[in-house]
Amino acid sequence: MTTKTSNTFSRSSLKRLPLYLHLLENLTSQGVTSVSCTQIAKEFDLDPTLVRKDIEMTGEVGTARVGFKIISLISKIKSFLGWDQQQDAFLVGVGNLGKAILGYKDFNKYGLNVVAAFDNSPDKIGTKIFGYQILSSSKFVNLAKRKKVTIGIITVPAVFAQGAADLMVEAGIKAIWNFAPAPLRVPDGIILENARLTQSLAVLTNKLKS
Amino acid sequence: MTTKTSNTFSRSSLKRLPLYLHLLENLTSQGVTSVSCTQIAKEFDLDPTLVRKDIEMTGEVGTARVGFKIISLISKIKSFLGWDQQQDAFLVGVGNLGKAILGYKDFNKYGLNVVAAFDNSPDKIGTKIFGYQILSSSKFVNLAKRKKVTIGIITVPAVFAQGAADLMVEAGIKAIWNFAPAPLRVPDGIILENARLTQSLAVLTNKLKS
Repeated sequence: MTTKTSNTFSRSSLKRLPLYLHLLENLTSQGVTSVSCTQIAKEFDLDPTLVRKDIEMTGEVGTARVGFKIISLISKIKSFLGWDQQQDAFLVGVGNLGKAILGYKDFNKYGLNVVAAFDNSPDKIGTKIFGYQILSSSKFVNLAKRKKVTIGIITVPAVFAQGAADLMVEAGIKAIWNFAPAPLRVPDGIILENARLTQSLAVLTNKLKS
Repeated sequence: MTTKTSNTFSRSSLKRLPLYLHLLENLTSQGVTSVSCTQIAKEFDLDPTLVRKDIEMTGEVGTARVGFKIISLISKIKSFLGWDQQQDAFLVGVGNLGKAILGYKDFNKYGLNVVAAFDNSPDKIGTKIFGYQILSSSKFVNLAKRKKVTIGIITVPAVFAQGAADLMVEAGIKAIWNFAPAPLRVPDGIILENARLTQSLAVLTNKLKS
């Protein structure tokens, strides 16, 4: 379920950084130049000590009483998350979810550059969606190797997800962002991150019911 | 950060149920009719005791040696998650992410029926996207009250997210699914669930970097 990695940063710490980043970007747009852990903590109902630890992880150092310089903190967080440069990604599975992801242009801000989309269906191959020419999955491995693509996005139905992951591993892809509701097996050293909207929705609909 | 609720089920338990559900649906499609906690646990690298507890939550009871009847378990999980009926939802913010969600038709399977989409921009109001006529946000409160809409989906930029949430609360909406990267304040009793793709992406890109 969780990604195997030698990295020691906790998932929850990593997942808080994007929230801080968005807050900091809002603050700069309002002309604010510095911020304290306590202010950030208050905004998200967190313990200031936790926020301090999260920020220390990025290497940013604050000064007593002034706190953190926002511009410097933003740049440290982006660099720590790898969002200061873009990684090329190939997407496999141009169904509803795949299309939605191709249509969402803001991933560029988060270090992700989707460069090509693949599908098995003859009806889809050769068509164009949001500017992407849909390619046959049979071309995936060669193209990914040639272009040294690092990220693979899986948006196929669950039953085809392992097959897509295997293709990606064969193609030398380093990180898989899996949207399919299927448990995937990948070799050690391959980063696997599951993005599951239905899990978030499950929490909401269950609470709504009770 | 977390939703305030009187509900005592843990988020992590709730978030595992959609995974079990997809596995069970795969198994039925392969003609399998019963399954044990141990089998499910193995599939997801989980402790069988944990899986048993998760399933007990739904009210389903297995039989010794046979395990669980898959059809019955599927129906119990769906009912527990509230996915056996659909709740009407209004979406606010028809940018890239909003469009992606309008274009994704599978939410119907997960208890969510998006019935209308709203935006502030005169360029968007009146246009049609994926079959949805985009309505002016000024109509949100009246329409939501009249149609007794229970779920609000927020896909506006962070800076407008609290305003959208306030509209939803005013309109009597019971649950908010927030995609905006902003911390929201809602009154007690309103369910708030944050769905944040960028958080999942942060884990992936950070690991890729290290």
